[in-house]
Amino acid sequence: MADYITFDNAQALSYIEQLGEFFEPNAQLTCNEFGDGNLNLVFRIADQNGNSIILKQALPYARCVGESWPLTLDRARIEASVLKKHGLVCEQHTAKVLHTNDDLAITVLEDLGHMAILRSELNLAKTYPKLGADVATYLATSSFYYSDFYLKPAEKKALVQEFTNPELCSITEDLFFDDPYRACERNNYAPELEADVLRLQQSPQLLRQVAQLKHLFFSAPQSLLHGDVHTGSIFADQSDTKLIDPEFGFFGPIGFDLGSFIGNLLLNYCAQNGRIKETPKRRQMQSYLLTQIQQCLNDFENIWLALAAQHTRDLSLQAPGYAQHFVEQIIKDALGYAGTELIRRTIGLAHVVDIDGIEDDSARLQVQKQALLLGEQLILHAEECENKESAYQLIVSLIQ
Amino acid sequence: MADYITFDNAQALSYIEQLGEFFEPNAQLTCNEFGDGNLNLVFRIADQNGNSIILKQALPYARCVGESWPLTLDRARIEASVLKKHGLVCEQHTAKVLHTNDDLAITVLEDLGHMAILRSELNLAKTYPKLGADVATYLATSSFYYSDFYLKPAEKKALVQEFTNPELCSITEDLFFDDPYRACERNNYAPELEADVLRLQQSPQLLRQVAQLKHLFFSAPQSLLHGDVHTGSIFADQSDTKLIDPEFGFFGPIGFDLGSFIGNLLLNYCAQNGRIKETPKRRQMQSYLLTQIQQCLNDFENIWLALAAQHTRDLSLQAPGYAQHFVEQIIKDALGYAGTELIRRTIGLAHVVDIDGIEDDSARLQVQKQALLLGEQLILHAEECENKESAYQLIVSLIQ
Repeated sequence: MADYITFDNAQALSYIEQLGEFFEPNAQLTCNEFGDGNLNLVFRIADQNGNSIILKQALPYARCVGESWPLTLDRARIEASVLKKHGLVCEQHTAKVLHTNDDLAITVLEDLGHMAILRSELNLAKTYPKLGADVATYLATSSFYYSDFYLKPAEKKALVQEFTNPELCSITEDLFFDDPYRACERNNYAPELEADVLRLQQSPQLLRQVAQLKHLFFSAPQSLLHGDVHTGSIFADQSDTKLIDPEFGFFGPIGFDLGSFIGNLLLNYCAQNGRIKETPKRRQMQSYLLTQIQQCLNDFENIWLALAAQHTRDLSLQAPGYAQHFVEQIIKDALGYAGTELIRRTIGLAHVVDIDGIEDDSARLQVQKQALLLGEQLILHAEECENKESAYQLIVSLIQ
Repeated sequence: MADYITFDNAQALSYIEQLGEFFEPNAQLTCNEFGDGNLNLVFRIADQNGNSIILKQALPYARCVGESWPLTLDRARIEASVLKKHGLVCEQHTAKVLHTNDDLAITVLEDLGHMAILRSELNLAKTYPKLGADVATYLATSSFYYSDFYLKPAEKKALVQEFTNPELCSITEDLFFDDPYRACERNNYAPELEADVLRLQQSPQLLRQVAQLKHLFFSAPQSLLHGDVHTGSIFADQSDTKLIDPEFGFFGPIGFDLGSFIGNLLLNYCAQNGRIKETPKRRQMQSYLLTQIQQCLNDFENIWLALAAQHTRDLSLQAPGYAQHFVEQIIKDALGYAGTELIRRTIGLAHVVDIDGIEDDSARLQVQKQALLLGEQLILHAEECENKESAYQLIVSLIQ
């Protein structure tokens, strides 16, 4: 058992050379670290022929608003294990794990550098036609195969234990569900938003719905989640989509992942109001985002129901109409979680560059007000949506 | 570490003598085994002055309908640990654990022999005025203090792992939610009930509601349950009530325990129609049972809300009105679970002597038909109950 040390370029290179698995014996390897260094080191090791792999190492702390925040190295194990589990059932859209070392908190991954991180691309108004469908395939497939519909009960209980992730769940519990809804020094917003923030914090109905979403996050191990499906965790190109970075993975409510994704597309939708000045171009981009949301909701439901119809192993859960009812509840939950994502990314600790990158103060404030209102209304009306169509109609009616 | 052996009287006595904790050094001890020997051995060790304790040892199998069914000894650890955890927050109504030995699957308990097992007493039409209130206190207190409202999230996640109980949960998953709703050789009912059984098995609405209750049982670790609150797990006398035997304990939906208790009182209510011939005496007993159910629902809600108002540690779950909403959902769940208990105890593998002990075949069949219909209607209408009053009114309207 090796003791943990933080790698530099030379150590990362030497580690990969010693494994001897990924390159020709006499390859001339180079290594460079290109992560943002907040939570993890990310090295690219490449040979002279353009073959490359990624070595990711978890740091024992998070650098966050200037402070150092100790953070378990066990998240490297969780992240690699979630990728492996999701890869087993949805290889197409899951980054491939090539090697792991829990003691060194290391994961070696396929290099997806030929693709682009979705968030940056959306901010450049680039579009990916398969996005909504691919994410739906990933979310529906991974959540079905690790749910009670498919797993044997004892197998599922063992996986719930294996993927217990208290430290990273605690970050979500605090940042998503607590901080934005009360005076908290971690919150981060302009004074001009104070009235909007107070409106949220003083709405008993909203606080009650957020409590329900938080309780579900605590106590609904429906399936093995990615846990952090924002547009910075997605690689895309014109023909494919890959999910990375599930270090927040745990058994939780399926709607959380779906809602995080939808919430991030909606954050980008709002942001475009402050980014793209020409109306037709802006409308085109926003229409693209809505289409992806609609596609994602449709495909998620269709794939889930098809899998449930064919592969539900649990006798009782085969009851006619139950899977449909279950998916409709997931979609309601997803709308609520999308709302919490919009709110926490606007006034909480961690923002998105989609909005913060808007240079004009007044335009940025308008976008933030829209995101807050949209988040609030999604949370308040989520439970009224009977199905995916009414869920999509709610989004459209609130945003346009 | 001792290897597991099955004790006889002499070994149980000698084990207690060697511990040297419970009796005077020169006490003259006697020991006799009086369990039914199906799942556990139960020894009473007493001295010449009437002091006594119980030594309970789990057997590595269940003798059930003539077969031997291997069963984990880990259930002794679970049972003793649940008693200790519940005893910490509700000492008054939890059997006291004096000693445990996981290797030998042994628990030493206070002797509650001065009290009586509730099921036998109800079958003799004996009444215990504090029953509903005491069980409500036990269920509300134990379920509040091990819920997300009170426990710190990391502490709760660790306890969920510690109380993972796949083998015993699997028995409930099968016997409560699967077997009764399909042709299954473990089912056990008279041919005269075939039409009633088919009605249940062919009702899509019922099967869907049962699927939902089963999914909640799988994936709603709301609190640390007893897991088997039937009237054979309750000791009572005129001044007190004690819960025993939580070997099915795990983190599950709070309504399951409350519903199991209500379901067992309703089974006894139905049974009295075949037991007590004199109408006034029968009505008196049945009115007693309904009063206890009403008291239990009222006190459960009041105690839970009072604890939540004073002791909710989670910031988000303190939202105004959320605890009320949460308890109302528990009560809905409880009605559903009560329904599944009525059905599975009537046509499934494990019956209750309340009904099976009715000698007259025709009277027993009438009772069984009533129990099935009541169970079915409770499951179908549970979700319509807005609060504890309407839950009680539903029960009354269905039973009288």
